[in-house]
Amino acid sequence: MIRSMLSAIALATLLAAACVASAAENLAALSASTMEQILKASKPSDWRPLNPNETLYMDLPQGRVVIELDPAYAPLHVANIRMLAHEHYWDGLAILRVQDDYVTQWGDPAAETQHPSHPPRSLGKAKAILPPEFERDITPALPFTRLPDGDVYAPQVGFSDGFPVARDPASGKTWLVHCYGMVGAGRDNAPDSGPGTELYAVIGQAPRHLDRNIALVGRVVQGMQYLSALPRGNGPLGFYRNPAHDTQILRVRLASDLPPSERMHLEVLRTDTPIFTALIEARRNRSEPWFHYRAGKIDVCNVPLPVR
Amino acid sequence: MIRSMLSAIALATLLAAACVASAAENLAALSASTMEQILKASKPSDWRPLNPNETLYMDLPQGRVVIELDPAYAPLHVANIRMLAHEHYWDGLAILRVQDDYVTQWGDPAAETQHPSHPPRSLGKAKAILPPEFERDITPALPFTRLPDGDVYAPQVGFSDGFPVARDPASGKTWLVHCYGMVGAGRDNAPDSGPGTELYAVIGQAPRHLDRNIALVGRVVQGMQYLSALPRGNGPLGFYRNPAHDTQILRVRLASDLPPSERMHLEVLRTDTPIFTALIEARRNRSEPWFHYRAGKIDVCNVPLPVR
Repeated sequence: MIRSMLSAIALATLLAAACVASAAENLAALSASTMEQILKASKPSDWRPLNPNETLYMDLPQGRVVIELDPAYAPLHVANIRMLAHEHYWDGLAILRVQDDYVTQWGDPAAETQHPSHPPRSLGKAKAILPPEFERDITPALPFTRLPDGDVYAPQVGFSDGFPVARDPASGKTWLVHCYGMVGAGRDNAPDSGPGTELYAVIGQAPRHLDRNIALVGRVVQGMQYLSALPRGNGPLGFYRNPAHDTQILRVRLASDLPPSERMHLEVLRTDTPIFTALIEARRNRSEPWFHYRAGKIDVCNVPLPVR
Repeated sequence: MIRSMLSAIALATLLAAACVASAAENLAALSASTMEQILKASKPSDWRPLNPNETLYMDLPQGRVVIELDPAYAPLHVANIRMLAHEHYWDGLAILRVQDDYVTQWGDPAAETQHPSHPPRSLGKAKAILPPEFERDITPALPFTRLPDGDVYAPQVGFSDGFPVARDPASGKTWLVHCYGMVGAGRDNAPDSGPGTELYAVIGQAPRHLDRNIALVGRVVQGMQYLSALPRGNGPLGFYRNPAHDTQILRVRLASDLPPSERMHLEVLRTDTPIFTALIEARRNRSEPWFHYRAGKIDVCNVPLPVR
């Protein structure tokens, strides 16, 4: 779509109005704004810094991919991934698979080929088998900002601590959902066979049929284009037929394993705030002049999760 | 996901069963099969050849993108696109924009920059202004294979003649929906400003908020990876800041403008057939042993549309 730059509905007006009007009125006004305007009107407390102990940096020749891990949903996998990063497990390993409209996956080529002359890399102190973490109990409760428009796959959807989630009150379960940019722990047929050594990121239409089938462990918060714009693999399921085509992983580090001077200072918009609710409303009913028809609805995987 | 190759639930068994059991029983058996098995069991009449008068070949340095046009939903736009292709309008023009998780867009760089020293390319006999074709009347009726699981955005969704569509019986309207690979006619703020000169393809999560806001004209049936794996643009909205980064379009042709010997013989699975319904069922409840949990649901943009 050719979209003309948004005319500057003066943000100053909104901010000035904030001095005299109620907070509720301001948020209603914000909902009729664009995302850009809403973010400009945000306060420092609407954002939270990424926790270095829950942040992975994956350096590829093309650039850095930053992943926020979610121990609230996959504590055992996140602990194992931290251990693998601590041991530099992924350094020199590769992107193994890029399947169009599906996933980009990385790990140890030798673990895939299982060739006797090329044994897989040692996992060190990390575990090779982990119990499935495909869902968790709703209680103890996490913050939950529920979306109003329903969902094809789950009884309820929304956001908990910055991640897209689904809930089923009947079973008392909640789970992370497979939106674009979500990261999971690839597995074989056995449910406990995905210890986080081989990870994937969603690069296409949300493959929601994978929900509750595999442990999602986090999401890409920056550098997604370095995973999504890679050449697609020409083998079955998008695996690269020729390992020479693999993109090498330079290194993967947990931010907390690096000295503070080498950590990035990224913040993500909190999802348990009135400003996030205003953002959802603004995206349900787009106010930009380009829009001829306003959907009045939004899918959980179409809600932006801003990072700065 | 690491997925082991599917064990061969013998297709021969299904086909042998077809000789003695009713068609309904066979289709029920097929629904418990994989897509691969279902396609192997298809008959020639389950497929339709692409109509050369509704097929565009876009040749990029990376390879060929094949687009099926849909005159049932956007007759004026498809007629204009045919004219533009006939005039070789796009030859030597470029990919202008690649916005991650959104769209890849192509057309005339000079039409975007509006620089006096580089006037836009002439449209020849093609029209520069076209009435919006954002939706059409449900009647006269097209074949409609409705999905059973609802939709966040529309009252009804399903497939008409191979394209994902939505319907609103209350207003009597139907429209093409923005799934991955769908192709539309970019426009400026004026609803009639998108004559098909600048086209885009969806390369991420279905941007369904664009539905009914812009004329979708077709979908990519082959070569999607040549649009989805391009480097993302570094300017606003994913436009390339440096035109030297543009991918040049070698040529765009309507298949019917080429001699028969130069046409590809692609077929797409018909969507008004029992076998397509079986395919939908198989994708709602995946039978592969990898699946621990079966969704029992499917989103309109997750249904595969096979091409051979």
